[in-house]
Amino acid sequence: MPALAECDRLRVVLVASRNPLNIGAAARAMSNFGFRHLRVVNPYEVAFREARSAVGASQVLAGAEEYSSVAEAVADCTLVVGTTAVRSRELHHPLRPLEDGARLIRKRLGSSPVALLFGSEKVGLSNQDLSHCHWLMRIPTSEGSISMNLGQAVAVCLYELVRDAKAPQQLEKVELATAGELELVTALLLEALRLSGYLHPGSAAPSEEKVGRLIRRLNLQASDAEVWCGIVRQIIWKMRSKEVAGSGKA
Amino acid sequence: MPALAECDRLRVVLVASRNPLNIGAAARAMSNFGFRHLRVVNPYEVAFREARSAVGASQVLAGAEEYSSVAEAVADCTLVVGTTAVRSRELHHPLRPLEDGARLIRKRLGSSPVALLFGSEKVGLSNQDLSHCHWLMRIPTSEGSISMNLGQAVAVCLYELVRDAKAPQQLEKVELATAGELELVTALLLEALRLSGYLHPGSAAPSEEKVGRLIRRLNLQASDAEVWCGIVRQIIWKMRSKEVAGSGKA
Repeated sequence: MPALAECDRLRVVLVASRNPLNIGAAARAMSNFGFRHLRVVNPYEVAFREARSAVGASQVLAGAEEYSSVAEAVADCTLVVGTTAVRSRELHHPLRPLEDGARLIRKRLGSSPVALLFGSEKVGLSNQDLSHCHWLMRIPTSEGSISMNLGQAVAVCLYELVRDAKAPQQLEKVELATAGELELVTALLLEALRLSGYLHPGSAAPSEEKVGRLIRRLNLQASDAEVWCGIVRQIIWKMRSKEVAGSGKA
Repeated sequence: MPALAECDRLRVVLVASRNPLNIGAAARAMSNFGFRHLRVVNPYEVAFREARSAVGASQVLAGAEEYSSVAEAVADCTLVVGTTAVRSRELHHPLRPLEDGARLIRKRLGSSPVALLFGSEKVGLSNQDLSHCHWLMRIPTSEGSISMNLGQAVAVCLYELVRDAKAPQQLEKVELATAGELELVTALLLEALRLSGYLHPGSAAPSEEKVGRLIRRLNLQASDAEVWCGIVRQIIWKMRSKEVAGSGKA
């Protein structure tokens, strides 16, 4: 079993859950395996209220935090991992088997917060949700029946996280950028790409998500994220000032 | 993932289940992990009928066999394993952690049928039920919240059965950028930094080396290095074109 501090650094994030029983079941599995921080993004309001008021609703559920976007829900995390039943729709993210993924998550929990995302019962995580993820993790379900019940998927993932935590935890000494910091770098870079003409001003979401993934593959350290923000801001300033000067003289 | 024949030798036995949703959830987890033989002992009749007739009830559920005693339900098995949340009520049976237990079960499944027993939601397996077991298996739940939801307990146990610790770990196939490619990215970025005024035109070597290290900390993949080169080239082109336009008009 991992140390308390490590369990406390995990945020289980349920995105757009529709079924109160599943939200309750996710919370129960969290209690069972020693995790506390449940975050729900855009839950179906009635479902969330019902789950909360259910008899025997756990402390985890009572303390669940509600967010209106994935970006806000994962802002304090340095690693954001999505779960998926799918083997290979055009996945633009690295896909790790649960065991390997859990090992990486455990390692990161030694030093900083990690978000584990679960999509809605019907459609899973959207491409927009996935754009916040560093990589994806897959439970080894059977070919003919890949899609798990949400509460059971949460239980299995958390079990794998606490299983065999005897392995020596190598601490990562480097302080990595949080999801919020990565969002800022991404936003600045997108602006620079539009100003430079690399992206069209009204560029479509897929192009922007591509840039988001490009940034998330960089494994940016917190201090470096700041430096990159400074660099991109300067470049933006330069392109802007020329534009103004140019248009003034036109 | 164990071979089909091995999965087919497992009998998941639910004893005195009271909740149709839990019976359905157990069946779903079985489908997810490739197991087929569900046996129910003295289920609450209404619950069992409801579970069977639920929309989307699986083949596993449709094929479930009903027994009136544990003895009959496990009669064809050479190994009978009970699951328990309890650590040590006067357990007269050896109690194995899930991982160790699953390993033994997998081994036995190679040659003959094994029964895995789950008790009712309220009271678990009775002493009478336990008397049929060779040993017990425990999921590593937290001290303060040991009792799992039935469907989730089934999911976690079956996951552990199919998880193959020996499977060779898939190596990450990612091809990292070569030193030459990193040099190119660095050179382009330095040019952009000078054009933007972030670095002075005649900037000293230490500043340039700093940028080189900044790039090398990015852990760039080969394909991404190319994308970054394209991005920086476009930005350079933009800043240059403005400069020429500006100077032409000055």
